[in-house]
Amino acid sequence: MASELHDFLAPTSIAIVGASADPTKRGYKALVGLLNDGFDGAIFPVNPKADNILGLAAYRSITALPMQVDLALLCTPANSIPGLLAECGANGVKGAIILASGFGEVDAAGAKLEQQVLVAAQQAKVRIVGPNTSGLFNLHKKLNLLALDNVKPGDIGIISQSGNMLLALALEAERNGHIGFSTYVGPGNQADVDFADYLTYLGEDSHTRVATFYVEGFKDGRAFLDVAKQTSKLKPVVVYKSGSTEAGKLAASSHTGSLAGSYHMAVDLLQQAGVSVVDHSDEILPVAEGLGCMQQAPGRRIAVLADGGGQATIATDRLLEAGMQLAEISDHTRTALKQILFPQASLKNPIDVAGSTDAKPSLLAQCVDILSQDEQVDMVFLVGMFGGYSLRFAEQLKQEELQTAIDIVNLFNEIDKPIVIYSLYAHVNPPPLVRMREAGMPVYDSIEHAVKTMAALADRGAYMQRSLLATNALPLVPDSQVVSTFKLAKAQNRDLFEFEAKQMLRAYGVPVAEELIIKNEVDIGTLSTQFGADVALAMKVVSKDILHKSDAGGVKLNLLGTQALSKAYDDILSACLSYKPEADIEGVLVTPMMPKGIEVIVGVVRDPMFGPVLMFGLGGIFVEILEDVAFRSIPLSRQDAHSMVNQIKARKILDGVRGADAADIEALVDLLMAVSAIVEAHPEIAELDLNPVIAYHQGYAIADARVIIDK
Amino acid sequence: MASELHDFLAPTSIAIVGASADPTKRGYKALVGLLNDGFDGAIFPVNPKADNILGLAAYRSITALPMQVDLALLCTPANSIPGLLAECGANGVKGAIILASGFGEVDAAGAKLEQQVLVAAQQAKVRIVGPNTSGLFNLHKKLNLLALDNVKPGDIGIISQSGNMLLALALEAERNGHIGFSTYVGPGNQADVDFADYLTYLGEDSHTRVATFYVEGFKDGRAFLDVAKQTSKLKPVVVYKSGSTEAGKLAASSHTGSLAGSYHMAVDLLQQAGVSVVDHSDEILPVAEGLGCMQQAPGRRIAVLADGGGQATIATDRLLEAGMQLAEISDHTRTALKQILFPQASLKNPIDVAGSTDAKPSLLAQCVDILSQDEQVDMVFLVGMFGGYSLRFAEQLKQEELQTAIDIVNLFNEIDKPIVIYSLYAHVNPPPLVRMREAGMPVYDSIEHAVKTMAALADRGAYMQRSLLATNALPLVPDSQVVSTFKLAKAQNRDLFEFEAKQMLRAYGVPVAEELIIKNEVDIGTLSTQFGADVALAMKVVSKDILHKSDAGGVKLNLLGTQALSKAYDDILSACLSYKPEADIEGVLVTPMMPKGIEVIVGVVRDPMFGPVLMFGLGGIFVEILEDVAFRSIPLSRQDAHSMVNQIKARKILDGVRGADAADIEALVDLLMAVSAIVEAHPEIAELDLNPVIAYHQGYAIADARVIIDK
Repeated sequence: MASELHDFLAPTSIAIVGASADPTKRGYKALVGLLNDGFDGAIFPVNPKADNILGLAAYRSITALPMQVDLALLCTPANSIPGLLAECGANGVKGAIILASGFGEVDAAGAKLEQQVLVAAQQAKVRIVGPNTSGLFNLHKKLNLLALDNVKPGDIGIISQSGNMLLALALEAERNGHIGFSTYVGPGNQADVDFADYLTYLGEDSHTRVATFYVEGFKDGRAFLDVAKQTSKLKPVVVYKSGSTEAGKLAASSHTGSLAGSYHMAVDLLQQAGVSVVDHSDEILPVAEGLGCMQQAPGRRIAVLADGGGQATIATDRLLEAGMQLAEISDHTRTALKQILFPQASLKNPIDVAGSTDAKPSLLAQCVDILSQDEQVDMVFLVGMFGGYSLRFAEQLKQEELQTAIDIVNLFNEIDKPIVIYSLYAHVNPPPLVRMREAGMPVYDSIEHAVKTMAALADRGAYMQRSLLATNALPLVPDSQVVSTFKLAKAQNRDLFEFEAKQMLRAYGVPVAEELIIKNEVDIGTLSTQFGADVALAMKVVSKDILHKSDAGGVKLNLLGTQALSKAYDDILSACLSYKPEADIEGVLVTPMMPKGIEVIVGVVRDPMFGPVLMFGLGGIFVEILEDVAFRSIPLSRQDAHSMVNQIKARKILDGVRGADAADIEALVDLLMAVSAIVEAHPEIAELDLNPVIAYHQGYAIADARVIIDK
Repeated sequence: MASELHDFLAPTSIAIVGASADPTKRGYKALVGLLNDGFDGAIFPVNPKADNILGLAAYRSITALPMQVDLALLCTPANSIPGLLAECGANGVKGAIILASGFGEVDAAGAKLEQQVLVAAQQAKVRIVGPNTSGLFNLHKKLNLLALDNVKPGDIGIISQSGNMLLALALEAERNGHIGFSTYVGPGNQADVDFADYLTYLGEDSHTRVATFYVEGFKDGRAFLDVAKQTSKLKPVVVYKSGSTEAGKLAASSHTGSLAGSYHMAVDLLQQAGVSVVDHSDEILPVAEGLGCMQQAPGRRIAVLADGGGQATIATDRLLEAGMQLAEISDHTRTALKQILFPQASLKNPIDVAGSTDAKPSLLAQCVDILSQDEQVDMVFLVGMFGGYSLRFAEQLKQEELQTAIDIVNLFNEIDKPIVIYSLYAHVNPPPLVRMREAGMPVYDSIEHAVKTMAALADRGAYMQRSLLATNALPLVPDSQVVSTFKLAKAQNRDLFEFEAKQMLRAYGVPVAEELIIKNEVDIGTLSTQFGADVALAMKVVSKDILHKSDAGGVKLNLLGTQALSKAYDDILSACLSYKPEADIEGVLVTPMMPKGIEVIVGVVRDPMFGPVLMFGLGGIFVEILEDVAFRSIPLSRQDAHSMVNQIKARKILDGVRGADAADIEALVDLLMAVSAIVEAHPEIAELDLNPVIAYHQGYAIADARVIIDK
């Protein structure tokens, strides 16, 4: 079930359409790149005006080629493309790269041309990369169409929506000296092949150990999530997404819809699918390298081993900020360390050897060994001058330091806990560090990057465990009564009334308090028998014509006694009719007032990019001002539901503060799972808001429910 | 009024006590450092067992020296130090560096020895650096006692509480190639000379353009703030403080005291004093370099000029996250850019030249020129490949690109707006970028660091403006009645009662609602005449023995009518007496219930490190869970008070949300200023809490006031 992208991203033959001997042309660069790198397949320059280009026989057209070729690089202008694709089809070309710009990224005419290109490609059975792409390379095939001379083969696959970003990463890798790439593709406008397809390919590509993406915008985010969910179990997937400040534009509002489509949502959904999301562009390579080498960590408990106070303190700050923990070192470990270190060494994590290693760096390998055997330790973080001992202290330490590097590398290969190294001398590339890097062990030149990497390793470990255990809700059989309600509402071209939304929830076993709709004064007399005379009630208008009930004066709370109820009923009717004289009023919904508790919000939106998405957050200002919410794509596992509740920044509030009871987390998780299943069973639901849900020590109450129908 | 530190941090003569020809000794390294660098003063090795060390005449003791020397480096063990200091005094030595450890950092015996050292130094009139210091260098005096061979003279002064941190910065500067240092000192235990003294020195030192600090802990934070307030007007002061995660240890509580002493507080106070605080260790040098070169910016409006989409988007993300704004480019500027760039260039900030400059990099200088002339633009941020055009595109661009660099440098020197450059080729050091750096123009290799620098430039500009305008409250004359109240409370060994705290506020013109203390049932009858029969009242127990009134059942709210008041009074007395049978109960305080509004908290604590500190935040969970508060040291200017209100993350709430009125910010600022003045006038106040203060559209109400006395 291999992706057909292999056919042309790892081709055995290539045609360069628009090949040229003019060094300023793109068709020259690509050819030179292939020749310089020694591409071992067949190369066919295509140019109507040349017989020979750079020593290769040239052909007048694609149709004139002497054999079927896998890949065509089209260096010609936009309007030539549809015709060329037809020729490609005739030859049997598998894939074409369209470098030209002037398509959908420019204007409506360009978008139309792009559509023609897509149709031509489909007719010709040619897959297309681009248009408006910077091209691609596959260094293990010596296929370097960008003619970049500063990249070397390695195991990082990279798909970047910006050519300059690729260039920046290539320069960074060159500077580091030890990072190489497998395949790069610039997806361009993604007219045909999109991010999800490239991820499938990188997931299958044996040269790629980590799939890395720079994304400005997805075309089909849902497809990417679906592929990522599977691929990220096989190998790490790293995404850097720009546009983090889009969220700043959101107006304050408590509707799920207004919080969707944000950077924050994209990050949550990607992480749910096991993707390692980095926040800063300069974290892409360090994190990708670390994940490629170490894959995952069993947990978040770090032993910090330092040869100087400053960096130990800083490492601790960054680790705790990143949600890591300092491991509680066991007594046994402490005793073992004590035997080899100076008395003044600090054996409380972070461990500071306090000069013990200055003249004896081999002790560091012993310490790493001891720490990595501690069951309380998930990763060992070696921080300080290692690699530079012979430079800083004494020339004669050279041999011992190199041997120490070898010992640590051996440990690194033996154990299944990551060993992460930050060295002040990382960029100096002294022999011990070169040795480590050659052995596939990253050495970081930034504490911050090392910590981000450890967080990514722990996150991926947690994802793998979550995936193993994942329990999903069983699909629901749609309830016939609910189906009829949707039909009715659709026929009346309205959304569900609140009581219908609540009935729907009840139909699927979600507990919702009893309520009544009253249609006249007479009904009011029956309320005290229905609910009890001493129960405070709430009243809300029921009308498809009134969306914002409070604004219309359509909500009255804390009503006790027939007199108060009558007055409230009259007030609601007159207020709503003066607010909207033509409003069609069905009646007034009466519900008991809910006891106080912790207000949360559960919402669903169908995101145009990512499909159905569930949102959870604390109610009121937490959603509106602080945007303290979590998103997961539907369907979600019970583990996902737990993780979204725990992700909330104000999580502590759910544990009970200021004398309040803790919220019933399991009940809330039940509710999230139920909502997920309901939304899956009812594609009619465009948007759903339970706001507020009042969480109690046992269970919860749904105070308001709103369902918007996909019309 | 120059600091006496110049005498020995820029000495003309130095004695090395413990000088040695043994390469493993510190007394060897220092000597070699001086000789290698060519220190141009007199060098006197001191060693009782040698006549000659490394070719220099050696002396048996300090007292045997042939002349008075400025600085003594003491390389000998801890217990030798007091005696040596006496000898230093006899010689007239101005300052001594004590390398030895084994003092206060180790144990009580060490602390005692450190005290002896301090006394000996004071008697000998010798200032001391350390003990437990890594030493110092002053590269402009060719005084390199650390014998670091990878540092060059420059204008960054650095005081680092970790020797490894200095080493990391030195290696980073070496890697960058263009950053140099003026003076470094390791302050060690700061037994005598402390951070504030070093800041005074660096402020006065003509070779230092920016004073940089790595701080693990202040000894006298208040003194540092006082010096920083003045020095930061003269030159930038950069601080990186570790311990950012200490705040995580704080228990949730609404008392100001529990939020003090945190990293967060230290950052707020440093920024109030004009210090540029960096969050990550790898930002220290980039930000220091940028501040040194560019000093300050007139505002936060940035014009981004990019030659590729990816980096423009990322730059925008980081800028907005850092609180910067994208400048609104004027039509005039847009027209001017349009005339020189390709039609497809995007002229909406961030500006993307879209290939216009690929073959003509000189256009970049023109664009920078045009943008810098726009009045809406405070800084120009050039992002992309500049410096690498001839490498990336065509060799023949070399000359043009170099000329472009020269043109940009000329602009940089002419205008008073910063021009900040991020280049993919920054670390490649191509000639155009070398030219810029040689001219004192930083070129960043990280968008993140460039943005942090711009934020620091804008912050410093804002500080300079704030300092110019600063209006401070006039000192208060202590009110005699209030003074008596404090005396009485002190005599009774208790804190102020709530009603006394409120009387104090009233005495200084702070509006506080009327209230009564009732001492018996009979008084209750008078309450309706006093407050009006339809005013809901609150009752709170008054007792020095009951600190947590609510826990004791000593608070009743929303009381209406004599019956309810009587019952509440009885309930409070019996509850409190059963809570604490021996409690001495003064009576019950009766106040009208306050109308609803926005709850804020105003608090004061005397921090052991920083002295009196004011705190402002939103009440309830915002303080307790989110720790969303701002700190300023007392006294503060009205501008400081405004900035602390605006700093709150949930600032929007004060503007009114969910139908609430906006809070009266000016009234809150008045209150902050009044509290600052009161605390200055009354050193008896150890802690003060107004919590909650209920802010209204006009004015505020102080619902509770608590003053703890310094006993």
